[in-house]
Amino acid sequence: MSTYTAPLRDMLFTMKEVGGLDAICAQPGHEETTPDLVEAILQEAANYATGVLDPLNRPGDVQGARWHDGQVTPADGFREAWASFCENGWNGMPAATEWGGQGLPTLVSTAVLEMWKSSNLAFSLCQMLTLGAVEAIAHHGSDALQRRFLEPMVEGRWTGTMNLTEPQAGSDLAALRSRAVSEGDHYRVSGNKIFITWGEHDMAENIVHLVLARLPDAPPGVKGISLFLCPKFLVNDDGTLGEHNDLACTSIEHKMGIHGSPTASMSFGDGGGAIGYLVGEPNQGLACMFTMMNHARLNVGLEGVGISERAYQRARAYALERVQGKPLLASSTAIAGHPDVRRMLMDMKARTEAMRALAYFCAGQMDRAAGHADAQEREQAQALVGLLIPVVKGWCTDSAQGITSDGVQVHGGMGYVEETGASQHMRDARITTIYEGTTGIQANDLIGRKLAREGGRTLKALLGRIDGDARRLAESPDAVLAQIGSALAASARALQDAADWLLAHDGQPAECAAGAVPFLRLAGTVIGGWLSARMAEAATAQLAAGLGDAGFLGAKRATASHYAAHVLVQAPMLRDIVTGGAASTLALADDQL
Amino acid sequence: MSTYTAPLRDMLFTMKEVGGLDAICAQPGHEETTPDLVEAILQEAANYATGVLDPLNRPGDVQGARWHDGQVTPADGFREAWASFCENGWNGMPAATEWGGQGLPTLVSTAVLEMWKSSNLAFSLCQMLTLGAVEAIAHHGSDALQRRFLEPMVEGRWTGTMNLTEPQAGSDLAALRSRAVSEGDHYRVSGNKIFITWGEHDMAENIVHLVLARLPDAPPGVKGISLFLCPKFLVNDDGTLGEHNDLACTSIEHKMGIHGSPTASMSFGDGGGAIGYLVGEPNQGLACMFTMMNHARLNVGLEGVGISERAYQRARAYALERVQGKPLLASSTAIAGHPDVRRMLMDMKARTEAMRALAYFCAGQMDRAAGHADAQEREQAQALVGLLIPVVKGWCTDSAQGITSDGVQVHGGMGYVEETGASQHMRDARITTIYEGTTGIQANDLIGRKLAREGGRTLKALLGRIDGDARRLAESPDAVLAQIGSALAASARALQDAADWLLAHDGQPAECAAGAVPFLRLAGTVIGGWLSARMAEAATAQLAAGLGDAGFLGAKRATASHYAAHVLVQAPMLRDIVTGGAASTLALADDQL
Repeated sequence: MSTYTAPLRDMLFTMKEVGGLDAICAQPGHEETTPDLVEAILQEAANYATGVLDPLNRPGDVQGARWHDGQVTPADGFREAWASFCENGWNGMPAATEWGGQGLPTLVSTAVLEMWKSSNLAFSLCQMLTLGAVEAIAHHGSDALQRRFLEPMVEGRWTGTMNLTEPQAGSDLAALRSRAVSEGDHYRVSGNKIFITWGEHDMAENIVHLVLARLPDAPPGVKGISLFLCPKFLVNDDGTLGEHNDLACTSIEHKMGIHGSPTASMSFGDGGGAIGYLVGEPNQGLACMFTMMNHARLNVGLEGVGISERAYQRARAYALERVQGKPLLASSTAIAGHPDVRRMLMDMKARTEAMRALAYFCAGQMDRAAGHADAQEREQAQALVGLLIPVVKGWCTDSAQGITSDGVQVHGGMGYVEETGASQHMRDARITTIYEGTTGIQANDLIGRKLAREGGRTLKALLGRIDGDARRLAESPDAVLAQIGSALAASARALQDAADWLLAHDGQPAECAAGAVPFLRLAGTVIGGWLSARMAEAATAQLAAGLGDAGFLGAKRATASHYAAHVLVQAPMLRDIVTGGAASTLALADDQL
Repeated sequence: MSTYTAPLRDMLFTMKEVGGLDAICAQPGHEETTPDLVEAILQEAANYATGVLDPLNRPGDVQGARWHDGQVTPADGFREAWASFCENGWNGMPAATEWGGQGLPTLVSTAVLEMWKSSNLAFSLCQMLTLGAVEAIAHHGSDALQRRFLEPMVEGRWTGTMNLTEPQAGSDLAALRSRAVSEGDHYRVSGNKIFITWGEHDMAENIVHLVLARLPDAPPGVKGISLFLCPKFLVNDDGTLGEHNDLACTSIEHKMGIHGSPTASMSFGDGGGAIGYLVGEPNQGLACMFTMMNHARLNVGLEGVGISERAYQRARAYALERVQGKPLLASSTAIAGHPDVRRMLMDMKARTEAMRALAYFCAGQMDRAAGHADAQEREQAQALVGLLIPVVKGWCTDSAQGITSDGVQVHGGMGYVEETGASQHMRDARITTIYEGTTGIQANDLIGRKLAREGGRTLKALLGRIDGDARRLAESPDAVLAQIGSALAASARALQDAADWLLAHDGQPAECAAGAVPFLRLAGTVIGGWLSARMAEAATAQLAAGLGDAGFLGAKRATASHYAAHVLVQAPMLRDIVTGGAASTLALADDQL
């Protein structure tokens, strides 16, 4: 069986060469975040992920969370793990120091969060939702709400949830029906919510539900949605817990994967209305959501990275151990010596490392946007983050589908047997392209708000950088770098063509939307390839300087070369689908489908 | 919820326009197979699939087959369904009339089998394995074995299995260790086998296990494997059942999908040796396997078709019903009006129809090879079948992964909830690229035995036909046909380039094997696109002649156009991976992975 080992060397390399770690550590407020400290934190997190979370992953999948009479019992070991997770400070680590967190750069916490996602995705979701709620309250909650709720949530004594979806509404928040009426200093909230991650459990003393609902006089649609905080147990003035609020978990879903994470259906106000407190201004609920959105979407994209890494490690361990047939490659006696098995492993590795680079690059830009000394730099970084977020979320999770499926394939028949663990990664990964906005929603955000609305300015600037790097590499005397550079230049042209087509067809929204997901895939493919190329260039320089581990650095070059030859080559095809695929997509009437 | 409806119109259209139904019905021996009869059989099968098998599909997934003390109890309803399936003659339908079957053309039985696979893949496997065993015994068994075993197996009173895999051997039959020693008119067989589909159950009175094992004096490797027939219950001379043979089901696997199909671990000879009868000559076990291989691989490819069709139907039903958000397409109020949802539906539809066309084309060539009046035609058809089989098996199952995954995606969050049924198709589909030879094994067969060994002759001939059709279509005044023709011509060139590269690099087996699966995908993409184009051309002619349903025929044109714009465009990329991807695939040492 395979044990998770955090890929610390690749993480640190990527943080430095792509994420801009050194510059971020030099920003005001991060003076204490030294490279040594970062390495120590990552090593501690790696130990925790390997020692505590990874061993609970398959048992959590097999047993799952169980619902009984409105109570949810997590899988065995999850309660104890949550307690130690919080005790070790991991839950609050990414939060601001003001509320008990460590205020680390997003880049650093991103690397740590990747480990939780690799080792136990279901478990990690409880922290992710809690941190999202903390972020919303910290940005929009009143002082009183902040004082009462944030510290125990950062500690992890209380956890948080987001209650958006309703059965009739799905992703369409305009159709929400939950209601809130004013009553003194609070509101009475009622309605039914579904798909509430970690919506009920007994790992924490209290659960802080953030709930989207409508005030009586609210305008229709998304402009009439407000955000309310409804704790499971009411909180007394002294911070102790009072009565159970008028809310209940009516069931949990039977899902394809993430069985360890209870997905609750919640009923608010069956007894007259759950007591809730307004977060932010009335009818500004959506704006409060948007505050959290960048981190939430980065983190779900990171789930694609983490689970791909885990699937790769499991497949690699199997392929290097399992002996079967006579391998064509003399270097291996195991099935890793069969070229097709090696092709799958290389695909998994090259894509995962490019996805990690994209997620870390985006996280680094978030740190830049938040804390760079120069205002213009901050603004540019923020624009880049806006462009990248749907790509990180959409592309990394989309890619994780094929990677985890290849992980099963490498195992052959054993991959289909649940005991091996390979299929769990595939089943767990399947949710990531759906929640926190489907790939289609990410793609519409990308071509609409992030591309068309600003006339493609940010993408054009980014493509300028990519093209410059590609041309330089293409002219390198180093054959590997030259190959990567040529492939990158061709793929960047394809992305430019596709963007130009979308901008030119702005007046045909259906035709543009028909190519939105292929465009998102194209953007991810090219930007991931650019970062992969930059890593190859950095590795080459370090090799020439005699720095670092030659085996690792050589692998970075070969991996980028593989990405160029197997992934970047998809760019023209994706461009063709964007620019030539809409007519057939939209050709049939409903009854011809 | 979605109910399976057999796509009879598309099936019949494909059988006629691509499968060559009329010519096959005119072949000697099929005089009674009139078009009316074929249609009547398909309609009956469709009713059975919809009425009996489809309703058992999800319950079978939820409950699964259960093992207890060596006994296996199928999911509720499966016993009764098996009884009615056999009573209605469906089990033996594809078998020869000599043994109680109906001796129908493979093309016709292929369409019928597709329905079983669509409506209940797990259930259908019992028939598939039984028919495979029938085929082996009919071709290689002694007269005595044939008289004793074939009739009850064709009836379905007894079922059959194939016992190949052993824990240490996987796909590598050379490593088999099971033994057989002679004892009078029979042998004593001992050894452990795994992954035995429907290896134990109580739906039939007896189970006829075909077991690969070695004789004491056998040469090592695959040349020393013999095939033995070991019935679960020994059969008396009068055909009645005697003692339980010395074989046992020691457990069944916990699998990702096909829960309704018990996957048994079998132990032979714990009490001194299971009584077995030699099938075929000593040490010729592999040749006996090869007899069944073409049908078995066609049928697993067909599983990819059937399950993709079912996933498409479920996604279509949901997308046409579920209202959410404001669709950009005014024609739909439901989510099918969102262009990205429609893109996924069109992708699923276009790929599935092309896959069906490929499977039916191959089935038609098998009929031609078996019964065409002209010997040269038979020989050419047989060569084409040899080339196509790994493509049907490998490409249709590989494509089914993305199609069933898209089926989940169309459902959004509901797709991740097991009750919807979408995820079952994805979980069930996942085995199809693994069993009956993984995609890697199919691809090595394709580039080795089917391409290199004959210098690419059969593929070149096929590409000549494809190119001719492509050029004719490209010059059509009909814009849709011209678009399809141009795309087909470009993709055919890519396939030719890739084949030329492989033939030129025959001396570098590792480099060729590194591109084998991409080459298989390329072959499937292009040949599927060719058949899709032929269907569009036939539909256009029928429309012009005022024949048939204009809505259906128009959809065939649009679907082929979609395939050209979204799938055929992948051909150059796949070619590039074949011709330029090997170096990076093979670049790393094991410890750099």
